[in-house]
Amino acid sequence: MHFPVVVFVPALFVATFALDNGLMRTPPMGWLAWERYRCDIDCEHDPKNCISENLFIDMADRLAEDGWRELGYDYVNIDDCWSSKERDKQGRLQPDPKRFPGGIKKLARYLHDRGLKLGIYGDMGTLTCGGYPGTPLDKIEIDAQTFAEWEVDMFKYDGCYSNATEQERGYPLMSKALNATGRPIAYSCSWPAYQGGLPPKVNYTQLGQICNLWRNYGDIQDSWDSVLNIIDWFSENQDVLIPAAGPGRWNDPDMLIIGDFGLSMEQSRSQMALWAIMAAPLFMSNDLRTISSKARSILQNKMAISINQDPLGIQGKLILKEKSNIEVFLRPLSNNASALVFFSRRTDMPYRYKTSLAKLNYTTGSYKVFNVFTEETMTLKDSAEFVVSVNPTGVVMWYVSPPAKLNLHQFYNGGKLLGSAYDDDDENAIPRVFL
Amino acid sequence: MHFPVVVFVPALFVATFALDNGLMRTPPMGWLAWERYRCDIDCEHDPKNCISENLFIDMADRLAEDGWRELGYDYVNIDDCWSSKERDKQGRLQPDPKRFPGGIKKLARYLHDRGLKLGIYGDMGTLTCGGYPGTPLDKIEIDAQTFAEWEVDMFKYDGCYSNATEQERGYPLMSKALNATGRPIAYSCSWPAYQGGLPPKVNYTQLGQICNLWRNYGDIQDSWDSVLNIIDWFSENQDVLIPAAGPGRWNDPDMLIIGDFGLSMEQSRSQMALWAIMAAPLFMSNDLRTISSKARSILQNKMAISINQDPLGIQGKLILKEKSNIEVFLRPLSNNASALVFFSRRTDMPYRYKTSLAKLNYTTGSYKVFNVFTEETMTLKDSAEFVVSVNPTGVVMWYVSPPAKLNLHQFYNGGKLLGSAYDDDDENAIPRVFL
Repeated sequence: MHFPVVVFVPALFVATFALDNGLMRTPPMGWLAWERYRCDIDCEHDPKNCISENLFIDMADRLAEDGWRELGYDYVNIDDCWSSKERDKQGRLQPDPKRFPGGIKKLARYLHDRGLKLGIYGDMGTLTCGGYPGTPLDKIEIDAQTFAEWEVDMFKYDGCYSNATEQERGYPLMSKALNATGRPIAYSCSWPAYQGGLPPKVNYTQLGQICNLWRNYGDIQDSWDSVLNIIDWFSENQDVLIPAAGPGRWNDPDMLIIGDFGLSMEQSRSQMALWAIMAAPLFMSNDLRTISSKARSILQNKMAISINQDPLGIQGKLILKEKSNIEVFLRPLSNNASALVFFSRRTDMPYRYKTSLAKLNYTTGSYKVFNVFTEETMTLKDSAEFVVSVNPTGVVMWYVSPPAKLNLHQFYNGGKLLGSAYDDDDENAIPRVFL
Repeated sequence: MHFPVVVFVPALFVATFALDNGLMRTPPMGWLAWERYRCDIDCEHDPKNCISENLFIDMADRLAEDGWRELGYDYVNIDDCWSSKERDKQGRLQPDPKRFPGGIKKLARYLHDRGLKLGIYGDMGTLTCGGYPGTPLDKIEIDAQTFAEWEVDMFKYDGCYSNATEQERGYPLMSKALNATGRPIAYSCSWPAYQGGLPPKVNYTQLGQICNLWRNYGDIQDSWDSVLNIIDWFSENQDVLIPAAGPGRWNDPDMLIIGDFGLSMEQSRSQMALWAIMAAPLFMSNDLRTISSKARSILQNKMAISINQDPLGIQGKLILKEKSNIEVFLRPLSNNASALVFFSRRTDMPYRYKTSLAKLNYTTGSYKVFNVFTEETMTLKDSAEFVVSVNPTGVVMWYVSPPAKLNLHQFYNGGKLLGSAYDDDDENAIPRVFL
């Protein structure tokens, strides 16, 4: 399987207002502790799962050794409950000495030695959501400097116990403070999630100027209901959210829960497909030490990742909501390609959805279709009716491109009629079924 | 693994009012088409999945060849949409000639030859729910006779397009008509589901006298929400439902959807465990031709099946609802044993639930515990505190019995002190973790 990537993106598409730290030109990928491990600090009874340097070292080893890093999953992100309950004598944050005896800097080195990056967490309020020391306005500078000294690569700034006024000052201030350290530190802002995620309370132009990514909406939980709830909110508000996203500045619908306890395999494929459509950060929150091979193969699907990482960075959208409870999502990609997702909201049985590319507003022509999860390929005329069989709570995901040889023929034949080049393809067989 | 079954049940526990056809002394087990295949009659485009004799033959082959039958799964049940839209010239129901060219009798023979049984479907109204000919009052006798002639073994009588008055006459009449055929035909009544499932509209004493099983509540769908909804309704109304159940007469919370599209493996184990606790009929509705090995191993779990099939036939109950969203279910079993299920309604991470058998109202003594899904065993004093780690939306399920050697020692030593026999067991280690 080969996915053609346009390396030189037309200037037209480059975000002009993105945070100027050069980071995250495509959505970040990696691992984040929160959803799966929460504030588990009980290392006595739960040593393998408590928030400690061992957990992050374990995950770093898995990312480095099990093929994740090569696919782009390179962040290892600490979330809440990592710090001591007290700042040190110099007023600096310090990790819990029992759970992080080696300190954060040593952990960062461990990761860097393996080609990975370290993320850390703080909060705009007096306390973090979990009750650990926060980073209110007067601590922003010192904490940014501490993170830089520790050689941290990303910082998530949560919003518990802070008000709108403090957030309005604090989130931009932290952006400046991080930039002022001289170390490139990607910046994740929870700000919009605390202000309802929508204008006029949320200013997405400003967010794109100060943050690399931002949580727009509530925390994901380990349930399909939670995933659906997030998908619905992002779809309902897509006209506001899509322009906000671009290289260096991403909407964040929260972590991937694939490999945890609450999703079936169909639902796991759906989360992967729709997070790719949404150009979402791909932070897994799961146990990479014990993940099933099926869940891993979904998270490691190269074409889904390629679609997520498309260099144009255009967030996709819901384009069709059928009465049959089939929804169609589309994301424009580089190389005149696109990703299509047929998503079933049904809970009965596989649904045979009949449509054509023309009905989905594709222009006249023959397209090459690659099925992301079955790896089948075919050629399809815009006018050809086809049937996709979509499983309940599942997706069929396509990478759609104008056939390469079409362009070659056009080029070498000086723009002669298109049809003849495809006489051998079975593009007229109707209907087609993709299982 | 060995599960001691009491073959001779004390007369005390035998249901005195059960339908007198001698059938279903333990909950029926098998396969039922509806949830997975619905009213798919499109054999042209979907030949493998449409409601046709081929589908039932395929499932019969799987039940017979893949180890299901030996475990007790022996019914193959047709649901709606099997018949022709017209009765024949003699006024008898007839199968759709294109989809069941061999006829029902031949299909029944095919199943009987393989040690399986055939179930069929009808409806109290003028039409079935799917719009096929119903079996209203004046057709009850002829249809019962037809089913007996076809050598059908079970009949599900649905309630669409009928009113309460007709149901009050029709459901008992069909019971008599089936008995009058002389062929033992198990009788499944959808009556209570059409009357809200609760007294005074529903008379469970009467149901136990005329039906072998009955649907109390709405149809299951392929989603965890649907499973939870059913569990909640059965738990909320358990004081009404438990006395209704017993050998030959069962509450039916509807099909097992394990192996379909909507449940994770945790959730699949939860459905299996709670259906076993509820002494529920175990009718799978899935594709046995393509089922994953993980889903199969849950459905084929011998101890879960043994618990479901316990000869006392006492329906279990929710005994504890913790603030932590852990729920504990208990079912009394023969041989002074019991089944315990620790069920997590959480959607965050595995929860370490701490309790003791004494807190769950077990009497003083040492118990032998068998973990149904991990197959670990241990000995546990009633007073010993233990910890079970319960995954989100998952269960830990135990078969709990007084240790066999305890009884032997008691017997041979004439009732001497109990403790000494267990000095070698590590029953005092606290807390214990079952992963």
